Amino acid sequence: MNDIRSFASFSDLRAALSVLPGPDAPAAEAAQAREPQLTKPPGSLGRLEQIAEWLATWQGRHPASLDNVCVRVFAGNHGVVAKGVSAYPAEVTVQMVGNFEAGGAAINQLCKAAGAELKVAALDLDQPTADFTEGPAMAEDEFLAAFNVGMASVPDDCDLLGIGEMGIGNTSAAAAICLALYGGEATDWTGPGTGVSGDALNAKARIVAEGVHRHEDAGGDGLEILRRLGGRELAAMAGAIVAARLNRVPLLLDGYVTSAAAAALHAAQPSALDHCLAAHVSAEPAHRQLLVKLGKPALLDFGMRLGEASGAALAIGLVRSALACHTGMATFAEAGVSDKD
Amino acid sequence: MNDIRSFASFSDLRAALSVLPGPDAPAAEAAQAREPQLTKPPGSLGRLEQIAEWLATWQGRHPASLDNVCVRVFAGNHGVVAKGVSAYPAEVTVQMVGNFEAGGAAINQLCKAAGAELKVAALDLDQPTADFTEGPAMAEDEFLAAFNVGMASVPDDCDLLGIGEMGIGNTSAAAAICLALYGGEATDWTGPGTGVSGDALNAKARIVAEGVHRHEDAGGDGLEILRRLGGRELAAMAGAIVAARLNRVPLLLDGYVTSAAAAALHAAQPSALDHCLAAHVSAEPAHRQLLVKLGKPALLDFGMRLGEASGAALAIGLVRSALACHTGMATFAEAGVSDKD
Repeated sequence: MNDIRSFASFSDLRAALSVLPGPDAPAAEAAQAREPQLTKPPGSLGRLEQIAEWLATWQGRHPASLDNVCVRVFAGNHGVVAKGVSAYPAEVTVQMVGNFEAGGAAINQLCKAAGAELKVAALDLDQPTADFTEGPAMAEDEFLAAFNVGMASVPDDCDLLGIGEMGIGNTSAAAAICLALYGGEATDWTGPGTGVSGDALNAKARIVAEGVHRHEDAGGDGLEILRRLGGRELAAMAGAIVAARLNRVPLLLDGYVTSAAAAALHAAQPSALDHCLAAHVSAEPAHRQLLVKLGKPALLDFGMRLGEASGAALAIGLVRSALACHTGMATFAEAGVSDKD
Repeated sequence: MNDIRSFASFSDLRAALSVLPGPDAPAAEAAQAREPQLTKPPGSLGRLEQIAEWLATWQGRHPASLDNVCVRVFAGNHGVVAKGVSAYPAEVTVQMVGNFEAGGAAINQLCKAAGAELKVAALDLDQPTADFTEGPAMAEDEFLAAFNVGMASVPDDCDLLGIGEMGIGNTSAAAAICLALYGGEATDWTGPGTGVSGDALNAKARIVAEGVHRHEDAGGDGLEILRRLGGRELAAMAGAIVAARLNRVPLLLDGYVTSAAAAALHAAQPSALDHCLAAHVSAEPAHRQLLVKLGKPALLDFGMRLGEASGAALAIGLVRSALACHTGMATFAEAGVSDKD
């Protein structure tokens, strides 16, 4: 465990982002050396082979292990909901946190199926962030407090982390972050979220544009964009990504909102997501282009748009299968199977 | 369990294909009625929702169950290997069957990870089918014997079946079947298989073309095409598909060779694959267009090209997750969560 547990200032955080640990070359080489010995044509397990190597590389050990797989869901409320950007009322955020705690949500079933430990952090749900069309969503200390909750959520002994979110209104925050980072039109980045359409969707895009215009002076500064246009659950996800990196925990990103939080970190430090895979590409239309910006092809394309880390949890089984093949298969020599030609 | 256990003639088989059981409407309706009550925006679990409905529809009960998940791998040898179509020698088929039995292959690890029971049927490996460039791969009785092995491999109490194959040379058989069924050029359907390229790949395509030309008089008859150009493991997979349908077992198709066997059945009876999903799209280039012909979008696109039912086994976890969400999630009423608007 790295001894960095929290950040007291933006400048401390910026300094840490500039010296993130890199890939573990010996672990990567050990994985690369074993793979061609396994009883299959070279490359024939495709992406499973890449995942096995990724797991070793970012755990920093070979063989990798998956004894402790964790999923963390962060929940926040958004002042911009007052502008009517969502199909659901804001009280659904706290109701869904109750549903997570009672075991009734999709993520509970998916974590159970994946053998993953689930924890949910509800971030000041009774105090929504400020409406980003009127001012910064969070003050610097509010941002750091949420970021540090995310940092602290990553256990020392976690082997693989999936992260996601719940927050009525947060696809508006995600769209605003993407528009601020990458430009284009607000409609390029604004989608139905939980299910708005027609005039309501047009209005949502106008609010996103208004928010980004309001904070133009943030320039391309990823952390400032995340503070001004994001929300507590997005800041916490960014914190979890950084803590995972410092603790050598490979990470599965969930959908559009999670990827938008990650994109802000990526803007601050282009290598900051090297330990992350995109678990799935969401049905939220802008997610596909966001993953292209991040250079992260998704593992799954299932038309999901729930959030809650549901896509990340669904992908855990694929990672388990990749590791099972890499560690459990016989070599050509062990099995007495003739090699190619 | 349906009382049909085997077929004694092509005409009996053709008659059975004309009266296959259809989808179970009450089970499908029960799944459709439950889905919108679950605590998530409608449709937000995307393909997972479709899989849950598919499972109930083809098991013929709601809730569906996944207590007994089975994977069956069929192995055969091919006379056409003498023409040099594979990068590996024919003895690898029997060596890999030994590897399956010893637990050292990819499919062993994937079945263990998926909680699936694996059985392997080796089909007269010491008697390769005839070289299809010289005559029919199988006589009618040889074809039916292999088909019936596949039929018998599906247990009465199986809840979900994954099927796949092992057989040096069988991507040539698959390519020949597709060319005979769908036309085009031999190069459209012929790929590297275990890893041939350059001149060897061109030669493989010429042999495929030669075989299809030799059996032109089969016309578009799917069963005749499968008998003349296929192999015992392909006939057995077709038998497993039919037995699964008769026994109400939803089925996951593996890669290119499995899909080619399925395509022959589809040509014989267009509804014959309605209980099947394509688990993955293989890196074997022709698989993608074959799945378009079958109207079956793949669950996974992982660049795999191993066969052995590896893609089917990998997808089992996705099906388990779909069922877990459908059966385990709380309803809006149970959880006290506000519904949309």
